[in-house]
Amino acid sequence: MEPPSPADKTADAERLRNALVSDGLTDVGVPLEVMQRLPAYLRMCNFSPLVSVVIGGLPSGGGAATPLKVFDLGRDVVYGLVVDIGSTNIEGSLMDLLSGAMIERSSIGNPQAAFGADVLTRVQRSMLGDYAAIREVLVDGLIALIGRICTRARIAPEEIAVVVVAGNTIMSHFLMGLTVENIPVSPYIPAVNGPVLGRARELQLPLHENAMVYIFPNAGSYVGGDIVSGILSSGMHREDEPVLFIDVGTNVEVALGCRDWIMVGAGAAGPALEGGVAGIGRTAEPGAISRVAIDPADGRLRVEVIGNVEPTGICGSGLIDLIAELFKAGIIDRSGKFTGAGANMTEVDGEQAFIVYREGDRLLTLKETEIRNFLLSKAAMFSFLYVFVRSVGLSFRDIRKLSVAGALGCGIDIDNAIAIGMLPDMPRERFVPLGNSSLAGAEMLMLDSGLLRDVDGIASMITYREMNEDPDLMNVLQGALFIPHTDPEVLKA
Amino acid sequence: MEPPSPADKTADAERLRNALVSDGLTDVGVPLEVMQRLPAYLRMCNFSPLVSVVIGGLPSGGGAATPLKVFDLGRDVVYGLVVDIGSTNIEGSLMDLLSGAMIERSSIGNPQAAFGADVLTRVQRSMLGDYAAIREVLVDGLIALIGRICTRARIAPEEIAVVVVAGNTIMSHFLMGLTVENIPVSPYIPAVNGPVLGRARELQLPLHENAMVYIFPNAGSYVGGDIVSGILSSGMHREDEPVLFIDVGTNVEVALGCRDWIMVGAGAAGPALEGGVAGIGRTAEPGAISRVAIDPADGRLRVEVIGNVEPTGICGSGLIDLIAELFKAGIIDRSGKFTGAGANMTEVDGEQAFIVYREGDRLLTLKETEIRNFLLSKAAMFSFLYVFVRSVGLSFRDIRKLSVAGALGCGIDIDNAIAIGMLPDMPRERFVPLGNSSLAGAEMLMLDSGLLRDVDGIASMITYREMNEDPDLMNVLQGALFIPHTDPEVLKA
Repeated sequence: MEPPSPADKTADAERLRNALVSDGLTDVGVPLEVMQRLPAYLRMCNFSPLVSVVIGGLPSGGGAATPLKVFDLGRDVVYGLVVDIGSTNIEGSLMDLLSGAMIERSSIGNPQAAFGADVLTRVQRSMLGDYAAIREVLVDGLIALIGRICTRARIAPEEIAVVVVAGNTIMSHFLMGLTVENIPVSPYIPAVNGPVLGRARELQLPLHENAMVYIFPNAGSYVGGDIVSGILSSGMHREDEPVLFIDVGTNVEVALGCRDWIMVGAGAAGPALEGGVAGIGRTAEPGAISRVAIDPADGRLRVEVIGNVEPTGICGSGLIDLIAELFKAGIIDRSGKFTGAGANMTEVDGEQAFIVYREGDRLLTLKETEIRNFLLSKAAMFSFLYVFVRSVGLSFRDIRKLSVAGALGCGIDIDNAIAIGMLPDMPRERFVPLGNSSLAGAEMLMLDSGLLRDVDGIASMITYREMNEDPDLMNVLQGALFIPHTDPEVLKA
Repeated sequence: MEPPSPADKTADAERLRNALVSDGLTDVGVPLEVMQRLPAYLRMCNFSPLVSVVIGGLPSGGGAATPLKVFDLGRDVVYGLVVDIGSTNIEGSLMDLLSGAMIERSSIGNPQAAFGADVLTRVQRSMLGDYAAIREVLVDGLIALIGRICTRARIAPEEIAVVVVAGNTIMSHFLMGLTVENIPVSPYIPAVNGPVLGRARELQLPLHENAMVYIFPNAGSYVGGDIVSGILSSGMHREDEPVLFIDVGTNVEVALGCRDWIMVGAGAAGPALEGGVAGIGRTAEPGAISRVAIDPADGRLRVEVIGNVEPTGICGSGLIDLIAELFKAGIIDRSGKFTGAGANMTEVDGEQAFIVYREGDRLLTLKETEIRNFLLSKAAMFSFLYVFVRSVGLSFRDIRKLSVAGALGCGIDIDNAIAIGMLPDMPRERFVPLGNSSLAGAEMLMLDSGLLRDVDGIASMITYREMNEDPDLMNVLQGALFIPHTDPEVLKA
């Protein structure tokens, strides 16, 4: 910046603003709190300031402008935090906004689980007077996650300038301190669809004092910002032809569409992939068996364990492998029943069980009823996907790309998932694994504010399709209870 | 508003926003704090809400947008406060924003006077460490004024939704907590020219918790928001041909211009009109003699006193009358010296003095040196005006309208002011008295946010003209020390 002179008496705030405009930033404001420090700072640095700029704060509840604002002087505040708030887990990434690098990623269980594993229970308890407490533990959980990430990255939370949050509608309402009681009750009206841009301070998050928080818009009570963010990361909204997106977490969420339309459906698919089906089920953390193979020659079981430690359970990808391998080895039949063939069998609680791992007296086993539960989950998921695609007059053959996100996307063996009839039998190259797509979409947005418009576009384009009443669902489900299906042609149809 | 239904699942915040848009408001945001109360409120009022909307908060330091925002629900917050912060006095008006009525007006001395009667002293003491204290008394004074106005109007300060502040550059910097130390030092750089839109909370003003404060832009160190506001109220910026504007307060400020250009000059004109010239000088408050006439027949003095009480002094308008009448009656000559003619003479401190008022032993008198001081002030003012108009190649004959604001505009007798050579000898109908033009302009803006653009236009159009170095000034001043002038043609030229 040129220092002031008798020939150029521009005031300090306008001088700074002009310099930013000539650096290519338009519509940059200087808030009062920055202005108060500005004159001394500019003279201290001889008018060569170091300036941090952030999204300015938008009037929420509609598509108003998001101008930029100067929010710190003399400090390189370049960290952004991306958060995906799930009903079960909260996952976060720390980003370096200058390099675009992801510096640290971590997750924490959603402490709201103490008020109910499922979201509806939490909403009911909120209505009975526990709202403040249920909200508070969520914020506390987020703060704990931030603390963990910052400690690992060796930065202070105050160095975080901006937060991007994606979550389902109820989670983002809890975070914003908005009532959740109208969301699961007809006619299912959220307080806001958003997007909302607030201050970290308003949300009680101890970050940079002027840090801003962007919360992804919902597309209604059933389609949260996490889906919008996931769709962003899948690129569906830029495709010429329909592509499919499936995200399996606590629920199964499916999106189908292209640049012109996006349809979303969601349903409970059972807890197949998050450790809820089997007694030995675990989330994908150190100690979980993540890969299983049965040697066709000697029938020996080989497992991979996350973190290369003693296994304590099995995660979703391991379970898919295990079921597929048990079936291929003839140890279970098409309906998931033990055939009596193969070794490694034992009895637990008076029921036949397969020994997944043995170390001395310690056994990890899978019972027949647990296999049955798993097949119920995979059947629900597949039939949901099938009926959903059919409901718009398409078939799996029409789908050129299937983005597989969430627990399913995270390292499962696609061949095994197809082999057991969990995923449609499409050419392998059409599958795109995405991991946590909600987090990925939020990370993309963090690095490219031009995508704000894409997000608004996606949210307004989405149509929610109610699937539970579809008459085909039960028919397809019946066949899908078998491995891979009573009619394997359905898997390709 | 239509309540939600299965056919219309618009979220609450968007529903409210849509209703406001269909009421003709564009770009209305719903802040998080309002959103938190919205769902319960909408259901309580059966979706027939009472909503207060205010200017939204703009990224300051440049011409960024000023969207609206919802800032209260279920409460009719319709009061606006207009404040003119002068170095000597703070004046405020309470407005009913629905009817546009001015409800209450009051003023208070600027408590900063305790740190120095003139502004430069206050700046110097700020630089020596008293900044916080000097700022604090200003805010305290403003709060006291607000309290007085609200008490009289029988409203709570929390019912005030928006504040519009006009003040000179140093006063508005103090109010905003911005450093003042660069303003009076070459190259005279303010922290901001503005306009600035902040929250009342940020300025420690205890109004509605979401109340906004708009602070008029300065046009530089010497041309404050008070002048910009005064020009707005004079309508100069909409005139086809040049008009003149003069505001006499602690300083004399002159503006000349039209829709295409505006030139401003300012100078110290002496304290002629604010009670600083004569020992009996007073501001225009109860007890001040505001009108003086000497009966040509019997030489008897008649006075009007503000509030019809015993006089305790004389204000500017009374002093102008007195000098004019003394001259017409032959009691003083052209140079302001007593001629020895007339009654009512006495001696004070060994000096001849005229008795303005007598009640028993109590005398109000005017000494010859005091008359001389007054003539010095009026000469400075007139010659400043003369040279200023000349400096752009115009003469008084070219001026179709002269808006007379401040102490001069407030009830002076234009004929007497012309008779003593204080104002140019122009046809009477060209004079437009304005009173507190800074307050008046701010009141106009309060009732018509469309004028925000006019304000920006005026501030950016103003050129400041340095007058102190003009070689003509001393020549004209010499002649103007006489009544009305050594060369009366100059008064019309």
